[in-house]
Amino acid sequence: MAVNPTQTRIRNAAIRLFAKKGFHGVGIRELAQAAKVSPASLYHYIGSKEELLADIMWESLERLLSAAMLATTDVADPREKLGRLVTLHVVAHAVQSKETAVVDNELRSLAPKLRKRVIDKRDAYEQLWAETIEQGAEAGLFRSDHDGLARRALLEMCSGVARWYSTKGEIKLDTLASEFTDIALRSLGTGEAPPQPDMDRCRTIVKYTWGTKV
Amino acid sequence: MAVNPTQTRIRNAAIRLFAKKGFHGVGIRELAQAAKVSPASLYHYIGSKEELLADIMWESLERLLSAAMLATTDVADPREKLGRLVTLHVVAHAVQSKETAVVDNELRSLAPKLRKRVIDKRDAYEQLWAETIEQGAEAGLFRSDHDGLARRALLEMCSGVARWYSTKGEIKLDTLASEFTDIALRSLGTGEAPPQPDMDRCRTIVKYTWGTKV
Repeated sequence: MAVNPTQTRIRNAAIRLFAKKGFHGVGIRELAQAAKVSPASLYHYIGSKEELLADIMWESLERLLSAAMLATTDVADPREKLGRLVTLHVVAHAVQSKETAVVDNELRSLAPKLRKRVIDKRDAYEQLWAETIEQGAEAGLFRSDHDGLARRALLEMCSGVARWYSTKGEIKLDTLASEFTDIALRSLGTGEAPPQPDMDRCRTIVKYTWGTKV
Repeated sequence: MAVNPTQTRIRNAAIRLFAKKGFHGVGIRELAQAAKVSPASLYHYIGSKEELLADIMWESLERLLSAAMLATTDVADPREKLGRLVTLHVVAHAVQSKETAVVDNELRSLAPKLRKRVIDKRDAYEQLWAETIEQGAEAGLFRSDHDGLARRALLEMCSGVARWYSTKGEIKLDTLASEFTDIALRSLGTGEAPPQPDMDRCRTIVKYTWGTKV
């Protein structure tokens, strides 16, 4: 995809509309109109709306993976490596917020066959994070993350930037990247463990509030 | 809303469908069918589809706010208070993943007038987090968070649970809450600052990869 001007136009219109209204909220006619092609020739370019979504997601993850490899290729220190992963992820989600939001929100919209290809690419990207955290744990610099919870927590934290950050707002990209790197590295630190939560109390409140037994 | 069985049925069907297909992807007929009412009587109950969404979001945030106040009302130590906020938020997003996902994803779907009421409620909830972090900073227990970046980072991290956690999976709710509390408290800790990111390198890579100047 995205090899000639028409395909690029379709792809950009799709990202804009999917980000705004969700995949299921965008009709083929609306997409064709936004991309300035007829519905018939739209199908010629994209196969199906679902294939277009899968292509957009796969390409976006492929770009993120390449960029992350490029950012970390010459670094040995796991702390510096993780700092670069966080910085790149945060900046990508800040400046490409529509594209990344589509990747993050629309996995549910893909049928299993198309989904697998996208998930494989996402897993390859997350593997970079997992390896870096593991490397840091082996070097005694990070706590270990056997169940991958820290990795997931940090990825969601950094992806969340696409949902609230505005490049036109008051917070500079440098401040954002620096603060998020700081949070990520502190959270993985090997210092004294902070106090633990009171789960019993939380269970009681959740049952009282939502009627859900947990 | 949600004061009689029909309203509860409509509300639950709407949450299920909005979470699955997005607000714009769900038609009135489909919603009526799922809630087992006629389209005409659906309008009698909900006003409009957008008002129904706003009600669902407002109610969900109101419940989260009440639960969070209940969870923290008798705590003085800001670390313990933040631990309780994190635990409650994580557990709520784990067990009420559809409802909370609708709240997190569909703000874009509300017109300004309806949106304001929902945002005010969300702000009241986030204010609890802001006050707790500030209280910790004043006591010298947390780093200060003047620009609210740590608060946003932690909220997104905890809300992200609704996107990937399954109560049927291998990770227990207690482990999840405990690890997330640990991450949150460590990240706010006042210990030595970790190394800073190399933004210049990241800028170059982002420009090379996405063609975006940052």
